[in-house]
Amino acid sequence: MANDRNTILNETIKRLLRRDATTHLKKIVNKAHAADLSLVFRSLPLEHQRKLFDLINDIEQKAFLLSELEEYMFLDLIEHLTIEESVEIFNHMPADDVADLISKLPQEKADLILKKMNVEDSEEVEELLRYDKDTAGGIMVPDFIALREISTAREAIESIQKDYHDVEMPFYLYVVDESERLLGVVSLRQLVVVKPNTPLKDFMTRDIFSVRTDMDQEEVAKLVARYDILAVPVVDDQNKLVGIVTVDDVIDIFRREATEDILKMAGVGEDFVETQSIFRSTRIRLPWLFASCLGGVLASLVISHFEGGLKYFIYLAPFIPVITGMGGNVGAQSSTIVVRGLATGRLDVRDIWSVVYKQLTVGVLLGLIYGSFLGVVARFRFHHEVSAGILALVVGVSVLCSMSLAALMGSLVPMIFRRLDIDPAVASGPFISTAIDVIGIFIYLSIATLLI
Amino acid sequence: MANDRNTILNETIKRLLRRDATTHLKKIVNKAHAADLSLVFRSLPLEHQRKLFDLINDIEQKAFLLSELEEYMFLDLIEHLTIEESVEIFNHMPADDVADLISKLPQEKADLILKKMNVEDSEEVEELLRYDKDTAGGIMVPDFIALREISTAREAIESIQKDYHDVEMPFYLYVVDESERLLGVVSLRQLVVVKPNTPLKDFMTRDIFSVRTDMDQEEVAKLVARYDILAVPVVDDQNKLVGIVTVDDVIDIFRREATEDILKMAGVGEDFVETQSIFRSTRIRLPWLFASCLGGVLASLVISHFEGGLKYFIYLAPFIPVITGMGGNVGAQSSTIVVRGLATGRLDVRDIWSVVYKQLTVGVLLGLIYGSFLGVVARFRFHHEVSAGILALVVGVSVLCSMSLAALMGSLVPMIFRRLDIDPAVASGPFISTAIDVIGIFIYLSIATLLI
Repeated sequence: MANDRNTILNETIKRLLRRDATTHLKKIVNKAHAADLSLVFRSLPLEHQRKLFDLINDIEQKAFLLSELEEYMFLDLIEHLTIEESVEIFNHMPADDVADLISKLPQEKADLILKKMNVEDSEEVEELLRYDKDTAGGIMVPDFIALREISTAREAIESIQKDYHDVEMPFYLYVVDESERLLGVVSLRQLVVVKPNTPLKDFMTRDIFSVRTDMDQEEVAKLVARYDILAVPVVDDQNKLVGIVTVDDVIDIFRREATEDILKMAGVGEDFVETQSIFRSTRIRLPWLFASCLGGVLASLVISHFEGGLKYFIYLAPFIPVITGMGGNVGAQSSTIVVRGLATGRLDVRDIWSVVYKQLTVGVLLGLIYGSFLGVVARFRFHHEVSAGILALVVGVSVLCSMSLAALMGSLVPMIFRRLDIDPAVASGPFISTAIDVIGIFIYLSIATLLI
Repeated sequence: MANDRNTILNETIKRLLRRDATTHLKKIVNKAHAADLSLVFRSLPLEHQRKLFDLINDIEQKAFLLSELEEYMFLDLIEHLTIEESVEIFNHMPADDVADLISKLPQEKADLILKKMNVEDSEEVEELLRYDKDTAGGIMVPDFIALREISTAREAIESIQKDYHDVEMPFYLYVVDESERLLGVVSLRQLVVVKPNTPLKDFMTRDIFSVRTDMDQEEVAKLVARYDILAVPVVDDQNKLVGIVTVDDVIDIFRREATEDILKMAGVGEDFVETQSIFRSTRIRLPWLFASCLGGVLASLVISHFEGGLKYFIYLAPFIPVITGMGGNVGAQSSTIVVRGLATGRLDVRDIWSVVYKQLTVGVLLGLIYGSFLGVVARFRFHHEVSAGILALVVGVSVLCSMSLAALMGSLVPMIFRRLDIDPAVASGPFISTAIDVIGIFIYLSIATLLI
């Protein structure tokens, strides 16, 4: 349903652009949801994006649209706005989105915009820019409802009407002391069900989850997900309430982190490259393939090294892809399980040995099964050879060894990376698979040299 | 912080279990958050889980804990509860969670429990069980606040206090007509800021997103994420409001779908196997490796077929892993970009040709770069051979061809799968990488036969 609506919007806008029907376009653009428009913008050339953008009357709609665009689209579009236009739009945007976008601009332009923005807004933004963008401080909104514990429910409701009419998440009200330290929380729902003159301290929840400004955004997201809350308060090192992280940002974090992990595992950088130009995309993917290229050259050296001394190389060579393929796939299985397990919290880095042991055991079992099977296949293929038995044994044992080793490496390396605070997703990309290829071939030809 | 707390909880509970300090355990278990307890349960043997579970006084805490457990843990634990205990717990659980758990039980037990549950609750559950569990109907909660448009703000607040004290998401109130058809929505926040005697129809939002019961849960999740809403109303084919999907379920959907996609791409089924036993885990991973095994056997047949006729096979063989490795990695890059792009909505299946064209172009560019590089490497390696130039050319051209083809297949196959409504994540696992291996080798040896 949502998709159908988008398709229609997309096609209508394109048709009207072709016909240059400005009045119609104006009507549609101003009625559409900014989130839908941002999808339409993706498939439009810059000049059309500009044109549509200028047709938007509501400055908040413009602000929302701008914050929904992909980074490179935002940068292209803002190039075409005057500083005054940009400032006006940023004045109508939540501080966390402004901080996010400002940090993508060249320093000079960013400073100029901040200087011209409303003092109050720009101070909030500069406050946010102080935090690392991957931490609770970097993703929080500084707009929240904070009241004192002696306030009554009626006073709280009045202050929602008067002072807090534009907070993003008006469903939780935080209770703070005179130094703005967090004491408790009441929900808007509690507020309407208690007697109007009840003071907040009589019904607020005191056992409240909060996060520190420097907590990693992924940890924050996991906390919100685990306890099914709509927002989590962010405090500084004196327990002073400085912002909240809302559930919609948490969704974005999970989706972005999952995408990053998936892309890293496949060795395509960490930003989504499909929406970028062909040359940019090629440049991003190029270095990741270098590991595989070097590994391939290394493998060729290993093979050249052995093949001269191997009487039956001509029989053994056809099985090289089986050895590397089986090892590679088992390794990919193990590393994927470990990387995703660590990311979702199902696996704990403290359990490194039990996890690796289990992966190795599974690898050995799978190696026994496929090693036997492929050994039988090899025996059958070589039946006209005198040494068929030995050749088959070499293939079978090599499959077993390379699969076991692959399972071991596929689980151990991401675990160690995590311990060293390196992103384990990077480990399980082309690096592991290349290493497994080379080691698998080495094992295969070594066993052959040994046994034949 | 959250992790530290969990570690302490985990270790404290284990220590107390060893000392069999029941009084202490009771205190801790009843103070802990059920979400934290569920994490502790994961690392405990069944008998200890049982013991802790029995120590919980609050039946809602028991209910929440049960719904947080992994499927196999839930099934093990419920085996040890009497039907009466189970029924009592299910009576205190939201209907969507009951439906979820009931559907995992053997039919007979499920029927027995449903029969003994409160009539009102069990009817809600049976209603939910009618929907496919991956649709809006299957994940919605049937508890929501529905009012008529002539109700005033004051009446609405009163009815929250009286009739709707246990709805999960009390922040949106839905407005329906006499046939329960959805007309609009008001937020709790609007309710407290308007004059108490304003009728809902004067300030409700009429332009409201809703989803049909049969919409796929992923689509529902994307909608909630795109429009940053906390809950989306679910309607049947007469536009009658039947439930809502809340944002916490949306988070779960995204995380589960991302995990499923990642696991499928690596060929490890779709459920997380790490938390399962070694034999179960082996059994799940076994069939996925069969594709790679068959592919390997096929590759060996291709190599055997060519090697007899190839004078320089001994020089060409060492480069086989380079050809398959480079093709495999480019293919994995392309298929990952396409699969994740489709999942996140950044790519649209209607743009199949422009997406595939772009992937192919990038593949050709990368193939030209690495083909040249590896050609030079080969030339250098073969320098003592008369045909060094030709051999190097064969390697270079083969790398170019196999990388281009891999990019083409890696993008085309998932796109076609999506068109056929088959999950594209399945396509980009071991199947594509195996096919790319075999085809790459075939191309390499064919070019060699042709040119030498």
